[in-house]
Amino acid sequence: MTKYSVILGNLGNTNDRFLSTGYKDQPPKEEMIRKAAEIEGVSGIELVGTWDITPDNADEMASILQKNGLTCVSIIPDLFSQKRWGNGSLSAKDPSIRSQAIDATREAAETARKVGCPMLNIWPGQDGYDYSLQADFRTERRWFTEGIRTVAAEYPDIRFALEYKPKEPRTHSYLARAADTLLLAEDTGLDNVGVCIDVGHALYAYENVAESIVILQERGEKLFHMHFNDNYRYWDDDMIVGSVHLVEYIEMIFWLRETGYDGWYSMDQYPYREDGAGAIDASVQFLRSLETLMDNAAMEEIRGLIRRGDAIEASHWLRKKILPQP
Amino acid sequence: MTKYSVILGNLGNTNDRFLSTGYKDQPPKEEMIRKAAEIEGVSGIELVGTWDITPDNADEMASILQKNGLTCVSIIPDLFSQKRWGNGSLSAKDPSIRSQAIDATREAAETARKVGCPMLNIWPGQDGYDYSLQADFRTERRWFTEGIRTVAAEYPDIRFALEYKPKEPRTHSYLARAADTLLLAEDTGLDNVGVCIDVGHALYAYENVAESIVILQERGEKLFHMHFNDNYRYWDDDMIVGSVHLVEYIEMIFWLRETGYDGWYSMDQYPYREDGAGAIDASVQFLRSLETLMDNAAMEEIRGLIRRGDAIEASHWLRKKILPQP
Amino acid sequence: MTKYSVILGNLGNTNDRFLSTGYKDQPPKEEMIRKAAEIEGVSGIELVGTWDITPDNADEMASILQKNGLTCVSIIPDLFSQKRWGNGSLSAKDPSIRSQAIDATREAAETARKVGCPMLNIWPGQDGYDYSLQADFRTERRWFTEGIRTVAAEYPDIRFALEYKPKEPRTHSYLARAADTLLLAEDTGLDNVGVCIDVGHALYAYENVAESIVILQERGEKLFHMHFNDNYRYWDDDMIVGSVHLVEYIEMIFWLRETGYDGWYSMDQYPYREDGAGAIDASVQFLRSLETLMDNAAMEEIRGLIRRGDAIEASHWLRKKILPQP
Amino acid sequence: MTKYSVILGNLGNTNDRFLSTGYKDQPPKEEMIRKAAEIEGVSGIELVGTWDITPDNADEMASILQKNGLTCVSIIPDLFSQKRWGNGSLSAKDPSIRSQAIDATREAAETARKVGCPMLNIWPGQDGYDYSLQADFRTERRWFTEGIRTVAAEYPDIRFALEYKPKEPRTHSYLARAADTLLLAEDTGLDNVGVCIDVGHALYAYENVAESIVILQERGEKLFHMHFNDNYRYWDDDMIVGSVHLVEYIEMIFWLRETGYDGWYSMDQYPYREDGAGAIDASVQFLRSLETLMDNAAMEEIRGLIRRGDAIEASHWLRKKILPQP
Repeated sequence: MTKYSVILGNLGNTNDRFLSTGYKDQPPKEEMIRKAAEIEGVSGIELVGTWDITPDNADEMASILQKNGLTCVSIIPDLFSQKRWGNGSLSAKDPSIRSQAIDATREAAETARKVGCPMLNIWPGQDGYDYSLQADFRTERRWFTEGIRTVAAEYPDIRFALEYKPKEPRTHSYLARAADTLLLAEDTGLDNVGVCIDVGHALYAYENVAESIVILQERGEKLFHMHFNDNYRYWDDDMIVGSVHLVEYIEMIFWLRETGYDGWYSMDQYPYREDGAGAIDASVQFLRSLETLMDNAAMEEIRGLIRRGDAIEASHWLRKKILPQP
Repeated sequence: MTKYSVILGNLGNTNDRFLSTGYKDQPPKEEMIRKAAEIEGVSGIELVGTWDITPDNADEMASILQKNGLTCVSIIPDLFSQKRWGNGSLSAKDPSIRSQAIDATREAAETARKVGCPMLNIWPGQDGYDYSLQADFRTERRWFTEGIRTVAAEYPDIRFALEYKPKEPRTHSYLARAADTLLLAEDTGLDNVGVCIDVGHALYAYENVAESIVILQERGEKLFHMHFNDNYRYWDDDMIVGSVHLVEYIEMIFWLRETGYDGWYSMDQYPYREDGAGAIDASVQFLRSLETLMDNAAMEEIRGLIRRGDAIEASHWLRKKILPQP
Repeated sequence: MTKYSVILGNLGNTNDRFLSTGYKDQPPKEEMIRKAAEIEGVSGIELVGTWDITPDNADEMASILQKNGLTCVSIIPDLFSQKRWGNGSLSAKDPSIRSQAIDATREAAETARKVGCPMLNIWPGQDGYDYSLQADFRTERRWFTEGIRTVAAEYPDIRFALEYKPKEPRTHSYLARAADTLLLAEDTGLDNVGVCIDVGHALYAYENVAESIVILQERGEKLFHMHFNDNYRYWDDDMIVGSVHLVEYIEMIFWLRETGYDGWYSMDQYPYREDGAGAIDASVQFLRSLETLMDNAAMEEIRGLIRRGDAIEASHWLRKKILPQP
Repeated sequence: MTKYSVILGNLGNTNDRFLSTGYKDQPPKEEMIRKAAEIEGVSGIELVGTWDITPDNADEMASILQKNGLTCVSIIPDLFSQKRWGNGSLSAKDPSIRSQAIDATREAAETARKVGCPMLNIWPGQDGYDYSLQADFRTERRWFTEGIRTVAAEYPDIRFALEYKPKEPRTHSYLARAADTLLLAEDTGLDNVGVCIDVGHALYAYENVAESIVILQERGEKLFHMHFNDNYRYWDDDMIVGSVHLVEYIEMIFWLRETGYDGWYSMDQYPYREDGAGAIDASVQFLRSLETLMDNAAMEEIRGLIRRGDAIEASHWLRKKILPQP
């Protein structure tokens, strides 16, 4: 039984570099939580550390979630939206910034432990570089690894999911693709460090998401978390699931099941101009409809398609599943 | 009633730069034609001038087509697969090559007239450039325009559809996108010069194909022809229709109808490793199934979606059309 | 003698969707102007209507510019950074928004006239769409054209440069590429409507910028303005000129000269984490150094390269111009 | 002292899917070798197993190379240009094909041992997939790994460099990026299996090549080989080095030196329309000129740039190195 969750901020205001005050209004946090809980199928929430949850309000937030029947799926430490992280967090050239980033991660881990949240989802958006001749890849990647190792070793009861993304806000991220993120996770030498696949990030890295799932799971079940959204394969458009792609999601779900992934299907979108709750709802119902399509018989049919590898047969199969007879 | 056609060569052998002898065997031409005729829904054929049809075998070919119940939809002059065109045809720096290219185009037009084929589809793949500081865009584009004008003026009864493609085999084509090709068509000053959209070429130019259709139709119904296939938006993968995209085809068909396009839906694929007839068949049935889905009620629903512009509503609409209830 | 200018906002604070308060502090406007004036070679400024200049402060701003020895090169009406434009300005579905957008453009034109600024640079970033089945391309493009025509007809003494960009903030812009923007400019039927090429926008549309220059100039000298910056060809990274590309700038400058462009070379960057004035200065000195390289002899050599079209010869030529002997 | 080499086939005829007989004529093999030897700076050759060298002609080829003063740098087993490999070689669904692919690799290793060539460069272009729901990533990647392990274990004196490429001729390759190829190399459990970076392949995977060098070298000096060429970042254009990029090569050479890479700098291009030897020569002289620029002082300056990370300083540094004062 698939568990669906959502990042709370997805239901709030959205801005970009041209409209910095945002396309919408910011609703009160309790309303956002209530609306998330009302989405059919959703039972979990991801919170951003310091935006949504801090050590100080942790008990209160836990109680609000409980009241709404929601589980805290992960806490995302804010290593990206503060001026001090502008040139990097755990990999920053400035040692005092690296130290602060470790502290911020530790605080998020402490908060997670406090509210019984089993995972930290780390998205270090500012860690990377923009220009040639600007970055010391060797040293900075080591610093980053060391930072993760430090906190993850202190919190063996928390899983650390490293979320990769090829670019934005830097032109080049240090956690850029599935396999290099897995390498870095392995370099920590800790079992509780793994990888989060954001479907959109993987798509615009020209990964076949299903294959990335397999690569991570084959190397010791290192897929810790999944973020869902859609895009045009060139940029992190953070759109409603299914608005561009279809068969790729079928293949993803197939392999998530085949490789025994038992984590959450979490929505991570950026509905700039859409109603937040409505956009998340559209994604969740799209995935749930796909899961209805993919019953045991369909799973077995897909196994056969993959065994035979005939693109023509796969085309007819898909067509007959989704379209009327011509 | 949509008319479907296919480029004959799609049913033959396929090669690439690594496997120059091809992935398959070359069937006899008559067998290819017969197989094309057997595809449910297909009633037209596009022929490559000199490969498939020449002034010498034109009568024979016309009779074979007729015997198989097929119409000749277009002739494609071969301006791309001979060593002499390696550095360009109608825009080549060498005046004797330009002259030969005009002759080859003229010969194809003559053949078309002879067999009652109403259109030349011009794909000048070698016309463009690879490197910076290599091309005289100004002069070479003028030569190209002049070449088209010369032949199109001689054959006012034939329509000339210019097929654009951003790159390959050159890193930059002169006919690269819908709008610049339209500009060039207009520069000829002739009504019988228009544009062919190859869906895959437009997709990897990051065009929204539906919008390109509108742009061309709004400027005097300049969309003369349509080639269908699919790809991953980065390259001309020439795949089976529907193997990557779905909603884009719905939007295309919607606008082809709304703007009064009454030409052919022609398949142009490159099934490297697949059975050629089977791959074409899969594409045609995919489009025909989509057309079944898009009945009058659906057309009216889409009109409403577009009028309101609500992505959430569109997402639910699409989901309910193609997937079971969650 | 090339005239260099800069968009004033480039020297201010910069934000993105993740760090909405910005990576830097916002300096006072007078300091920004003073710093712009201090950049060697810069003699012009572009101002954003309502951010930088309004009918109310126009006289004061004109006097500050004059005091600093700067010319007002263009005014950019703000059709992108206000909540009301979130779903489009001149092409919005809401007629009252379209009307407001015409008023805002008119006000910018009035301000330009008042301060003797000869050009409006129109970048309608919100005009476009994000999802399939969301936009009525036909009607919305007509509305957009009509809006431009309305204001441009009222201000025949002002040139209207339409700046295209394939995407961002929408996933698809209505003014997306050089040639479709030219078509739209032509559709206004007015001589004072033309096109602005932003080098970065053209690069990530996979245009060869030099060729776009030629296309626009060949169709009645429709290149009205140039914005310079650099990127990795996938996104509008808005980087320092020359940080990624080199030979493309040489080819651009060559063709700007050959086609008689006599407008400004204006810097349009987004130095998120860099000192604004410093980043602009680096770009201007890069272009000025290139212009030093491109003396009359070099121009003649390039003419020869282009005539012969030999990539090997061009490679050696470039190498010898910029690198020591091996 | 950098060692330059070239893949012999680069000096021969070139074809693509549109011009399958090729853009040029095929010169005799001995003439190609002689021309390679004449390129200033070149002292090594890569040969394709079965095209250029077989067990039968190995002695003769070794003697020709010696006569021309050339070292055999690597042998590239032909796992891509024969009809039997069309659906994959070491990862093919058909067990007899997998077995043949192991044999072909073994034969190339045997040939290498015979002529004292220390490396096999494995480019398994056909191993991957084109369509969704076509590939069993899990099983097929295991088969591939097992195939490499089998042969590499038999030839511990030969190094096996796995060359990755995101796509072409398949739309998705199994060896797609630096880090996933490294993972697969590690999965063999053998020290003599590493990675080859083809600069162009990495560029169009949106890797920063310099960073990929560091990632591979940091994980046990797993960078075994380097192929050089250039492209527009979207496709494997296989162009002359320096025809698009500049500063990236500076950063690459910097990190190749800093991480102690002591292998060959090998040219791997596809000069469709250019003289082969001339195109290789242009690349080699470009790299040699860059190396002249990068003397000890420049290396130390780059170390400082990277330590400080100031893009503006780096821009001025580069400009002053390559362009005249403005």
